Amino acid sequence: MGVTLFSIEQVNAQQGHRITRIAKIQVDPAQLESFNAALKEQMATAVKLEPGVLTYYAVADKGNPSDITILEIYADTAAYQSHIQTTHFKKYKATVQNMVKSLELIDVNLISVAKKPGM
Amino acid sequence: MGVTLFSIEQVNAQQGHRITRIAKIQVDPAQLESFNAALKEQMATAVKLEPGVLTYYAVADKGNPSDITILEIYADTAAYQSHIQTTHFKKYKATVQNMVKSLELIDVNLISVAKKPGM
Repeated sequence: MGVTLFSIEQVNAQQGHRITRIAKIQVDPAQLESFNAALKEQMATAVKLEPGVLTYYAVADKGNPSDITILEIYADTAAYQSHIQTTHFKKYKATVQNMVKSLELIDVNLISVAKKPGM
Repeated sequence: MGVTLFSIEQVNAQQGHRITRIAKIQVDPAQLESFNAALKEQMATAVKLEPGVLTYYAVADKGNPSDITILEIYADTAAYQSHIQTTHFKKYKATVQNMVKSLELIDVNLISVAKKPGM
């Protein structure tokens, strides 16, 4: 039982350093398809190449598809600082700079996650 | 190669029926701890008991922890309709009815997900 408690504390300590954020982006509707392609490429590349980029979910309002919300989870502050210095992130920022009308970043705390296995 | 393409189309067709939503909830700050406990229980129970409840991420604004955002993914409309009729969901709604100051539900389309294995 001591071992079990120790493991749970380790997990909590690790998750306690995580950076979780919501990004709200308003995109120029005329450039939405190009924006979404660049976003998908950035997400896939960062998760593939960077050990500390853990999770991205990007969604678009059904009623207004150029209103985009992204849930982002990084391992810790160092992982995030490293991320924004990568070639792929800088390429993404340069590609979308004239497509983005507004960007709001909201620091959040993860209350809870519940998912089916494999989701 | 024919088989591979067929499998990808099957996955896309299945995901095309999914219901993805963002819920924005403002909670009475005095009852935040009770609300979060009820929310966590609802999320865990629904994912455990209901085949069509796939994913929940609940986060709280760091600057204002009673501003809560939930990303929800259901298998399809039938799964969602079934979900809101369950005993555990009705219990949750009854428990939190006097804790919730406002609730906004936003239907969204999933643009893309990128996650580390096991996340």
